[in-house]
Amino acid sequence: MIQKLISAIQKTQAPIVVGLDPKLSFIPDRITSEAYREFGETAEGAAQALWNFNREIIDGVYDLIPAVKPQIAMYEQFGIPGLIAFDKTVRYCHEKGLLVIGDIKRGDIGSTSEAYAIGHLGSTKVGSTMVSGFEEDFATVNPYLGSDGVQPFIDVCSQADKGIFVLVKTSNPSSGEFQDRQVDGRPLYELVGEQVEKWGQQSMDGDYSNVGAVVGATYPEMGRILREIMPHAYILVPGYGAQGGKGSDLVHFFREDGLGAIVNSSRGIIAAWKSEQYSSFGGNRIGEAARAAVLDMKKDISNALCSR
Amino acid sequence: MIQKLISAIQKTQAPIVVGLDPKLSFIPDRITSEAYREFGETAEGAAQALWNFNREIIDGVYDLIPAVKPQIAMYEQFGIPGLIAFDKTVRYCHEKGLLVIGDIKRGDIGSTSEAYAIGHLGSTKVGSTMVSGFEEDFATVNPYLGSDGVQPFIDVCSQADKGIFVLVKTSNPSSGEFQDRQVDGRPLYELVGEQVEKWGQQSMDGDYSNVGAVVGATYPEMGRILREIMPHAYILVPGYGAQGGKGSDLVHFFREDGLGAIVNSSRGIIAAWKSEQYSSFGGNRIGEAARAAVLDMKKDISNALCSR
Repeated sequence: MIQKLISAIQKTQAPIVVGLDPKLSFIPDRITSEAYREFGETAEGAAQALWNFNREIIDGVYDLIPAVKPQIAMYEQFGIPGLIAFDKTVRYCHEKGLLVIGDIKRGDIGSTSEAYAIGHLGSTKVGSTMVSGFEEDFATVNPYLGSDGVQPFIDVCSQADKGIFVLVKTSNPSSGEFQDRQVDGRPLYELVGEQVEKWGQQSMDGDYSNVGAVVGATYPEMGRILREIMPHAYILVPGYGAQGGKGSDLVHFFREDGLGAIVNSSRGIIAAWKSEQYSSFGGNRIGEAARAAVLDMKKDISNALCSR
Repeated sequence: MIQKLISAIQKTQAPIVVGLDPKLSFIPDRITSEAYREFGETAEGAAQALWNFNREIIDGVYDLIPAVKPQIAMYEQFGIPGLIAFDKTVRYCHEKGLLVIGDIKRGDIGSTSEAYAIGHLGSTKVGSTMVSGFEEDFATVNPYLGSDGVQPFIDVCSQADKGIFVLVKTSNPSSGEFQDRQVDGRPLYELVGEQVEKWGQQSMDGDYSNVGAVVGATYPEMGRILREIMPHAYILVPGYGAQGGKGSDLVHFFREDGLGAIVNSSRGIIAAWKSEQYSSFGGNRIGEAARAAVLDMKKDISNALCSR
């Protein structure tokens, strides 16, 4: 699966993933009003608004990028109707030729992790029929429970040609509270990174593994070290834009050949129309605003990579 | 909320939670065949089987126990239909007077954790209406992302009178891989435990906090230490029964007054009818088999607590 992502990155010349993390506050009134008119001020109404919003954003950017990363929490918040909007979004992105990274941060013990892996990446037998749940291409995984919690995801990667990104060093301010604690003179995230490299050996696909890592753009120095510790792991880099990460911070995450990392931006793209910089598009042209923001992000990253 | 759980434990004299983690292999043919006849060998068929199975189990045990703990992965595995079965299970348990601990192990950064907290424990504004997603009473939370990932859950606990159990030391064999690593001469799980105690100060409810902890029955010695480090945290103890934890291992998790811990058993109760010990009930009386297993578990724990 990782080679499919690499091909898509090479084709679009954009190591960029758009985070589909919609909040109601990002959505223009014309979309929410119509949804509430049809479904009321209910979870169904909210879900309909998310879905119609996503469609306009996807239509605006799908030909520029290799992948999207819907954050399931934003949908799960509205219960079943929200998760139906998540499911429709995943399917619509596939129709548009995009790869889908489910930002689900799941992680549990043995057979429970297996159920998550099946539910998001694999399939399971019902009677004599194979059945799938959600159908992402990649999922993010929390490693706190150790190898027997991650292994079922790796198994599904190999069986179903899928991929995962394991949380190593997250982009948020308090990520250091546990992740940076010194263990034998080295921060915990380095040990997790070493484990990711080891886990990855089980599911290689060309030069890279289907087991990648999440490392926040907000910690570029740690990115440099982790890039070395995990030579076969693709790095998914959140935290660019709204969270403070800049293009120049990103160079450490990439290898010399410009591969090895993919950078996520959520709010900076999907809520571009609400920002000063792209406000001229207004609430009627949110897809075009997102498109302009993707093109600028592409330029920012490409400049940073060229000038290193 | 924690006082509601304590009252229910005192009323039932059972510090026991039944884990509703159904697998298709636990379900008698009569239930799966009927579900497949109606919905086909599909995710809908599987979900219908889980739901009908759960109902028989719940009907068999609801008056003996304070709470249930559905493991959402087992439902999520079947996508939307599975999650509808999860939702129906939560509502049915409430109708039967049970408290519901959603075993969801969610955890993310700031606004994303907030969405999870809202989706499972709280509510949010849609237009001018407050809307809820799933409606558990407690949820389990993964702490790997640090305080800003946990804080939104604590806020919802205080606002909506709900509770959480934070993963401190999990019951699985490889939980030590990261959780036991020595930081300044002490294992990481102790630092997480200290943080749980600190977080808990923000949402006290009587002698205990709405912020509890998960500590596996399979590590009783660590339970003893964590009980001291987190004097105000209720401890949710998985790993009893099928995972190897015994009644005598549990005493360390409880305070002298018999409070402070609640022990989960999943397979040992819900799949009791498939075990040697309760096989005489057969596949037609799965609720009665579960009831017998709960009564035996209650006796086992009560004996262990009396003889310490």
